[in-house]
Amino acid sequence: MTDPLALVAPGAMGAALGARLVARGVPVLTALEGRSASSRARAEAAGLRVVATGELMQARWFLSVVPPAQAMTLAREFAGWCQGVARPPVFVDLNAINPDTAAQVQAVIEAAGARFVDGCILGFPPKGDAPGPTIYLSDDAAELAALLEAHGLQARTLRGGVGAASALKMAYAGINKGVALLGAAMALAAQRHDAGEALRAALGQTHPALLAQLDHALPDLLPKARRWAPEMEEIAAFIGPERHEAGIYTALAAHCRALADDLDGAGEAAAVLRAF
Amino acid sequence: MTDPLALVAPGAMGAALGARLVARGVPVLTALEGRSASSRARAEAAGLRVVATGELMQARWFLSVVPPAQAMTLAREFAGWCQGVARPPVFVDLNAINPDTAAQVQAVIEAAGARFVDGCILGFPPKGDAPGPTIYLSDDAAELAALLEAHGLQARTLRGGVGAASALKMAYAGINKGVALLGAAMALAAQRHDAGEALRAALGQTHPALLAQLDHALPDLLPKARRWAPEMEEIAAFIGPERHEAGIYTALAAHCRALADDLDGAGEAAAVLRAF
Repeated sequence: MTDPLALVAPGAMGAALGARLVARGVPVLTALEGRSASSRARAEAAGLRVVATGELMQARWFLSVVPPAQAMTLAREFAGWCQGVARPPVFVDLNAINPDTAAQVQAVIEAAGARFVDGCILGFPPKGDAPGPTIYLSDDAAELAALLEAHGLQARTLRGGVGAASALKMAYAGINKGVALLGAAMALAAQRHDAGEALRAALGQTHPALLAQLDHALPDLLPKARRWAPEMEEIAAFIGPERHEAGIYTALAAHCRALADDLDGAGEAAAVLRAF
Repeated sequence: MTDPLALVAPGAMGAALGARLVARGVPVLTALEGRSASSRARAEAAGLRVVATGELMQARWFLSVVPPAQAMTLAREFAGWCQGVARPPVFVDLNAINPDTAAQVQAVIEAAGARFVDGCILGFPPKGDAPGPTIYLSDDAAELAALLEAHGLQARTLRGGVGAASALKMAYAGINKGVALLGAAMALAAQRHDAGEALRAALGQTHPALLAQLDHALPDLLPKARRWAPEMEEIAAFIGPERHEAGIYTALAAHCRALADDLDGAGEAAAVLRAF
């Protein structure tokens, strides 16, 4: 029987990864002290085994899958749980954090006597039998990559130490989500001048794949915009505040919050993006 | 014989459009007072007929193809040339200016007693026998669109009055050039963390068309970055300074200038973008 794996905290991505592993025979432990009711509901629906935090420490691998702002909080909690534990799990940070934050998480984990692995997740949560996202891990975690691959998930190791996987996540999201947010900004501006239809036609003629990507991304980003804002700020920190390009992502974060506020309010921008 | 058409000022795009029309039998007039030596060289290579400004006023159409910062300057010059002319040409603004600027140009042209047409050019200058860019014109210029189509250029009319073509240009460039500049920012940041190769591989797996676009765009944008900076500022003005998204394009303008400075200087960023 496969050893249990620990996973905290089951948001949409974490729960879907956990559900896939459970379905393929891996016992997945989670703890829910201090987590939301929706985390509990998702954990139960995914078939995760909800345990006390102490029991998580028996796993060989501990996967941290939380919003970027909570990555350090969870690392500090994990460090506390390590006290008096002879062989704590390997802490695997899969979050959308920049390489500097990853190094800070590493310092906390290693000071608590545990091993740290830098990782990231690219793509959408697994759904049905579709392959789902790819998990990238530093190359000292080949054993975990093999375990995940053997149990229904796509995993790769990356050359480079701590920071390479985090940098990959930042740069990939900076392009992929950045393109969606630029497209949203321009679709809204064009529509204010009655040029939305002309924009679609022109893009369709010269950039059909990009238009297809926007057709998927514009309605899809609306419910995610609130969550994307701090991710855009992580990307600004990844670039470095001294560089001009950081301002692009600071402004994209503000754009995310404006879109999220619109969706919670009048929904005028949301209607334009859904209809583009 | 086809009536002559006037075109000012022959930059890379204007000269290429002019050369295509000349090759298809349209006499193209230009004036070069106050223009650069490179404009003169391009005009001669394109086979344009260099005339005194007064002679331009005999054309039926006057195409303004200049960098955005010079669009109003040329409009004011044209207004001056109209004095004492019974039937001045129709002034067709094909520049990357925002709809507010287009309305200001319109006011100058109409005050001088001439007709104004809002237009834009999407795509690269025509080269060899390739079809080249598409010229969009407001729908009161169907006659010009037909003339261009009949002489080797792609032209379309757009519903909507003054501003629709300018808005289309802004939104299209905001996506197309914006994607290239985001890609450049992320390629540079990834490479600083040795994650450039992983980024290419990940994008190639999930977004092959986008990667192909970046492969073309990243080396291509370097010599254009200086010229793109004011175009990004036009897009910020198009969005409106009161909106958060405007900050995206203000930052992209700064990013353009930094890339242009790098190319004129150490060329470190340029080397990374060429090798990506």
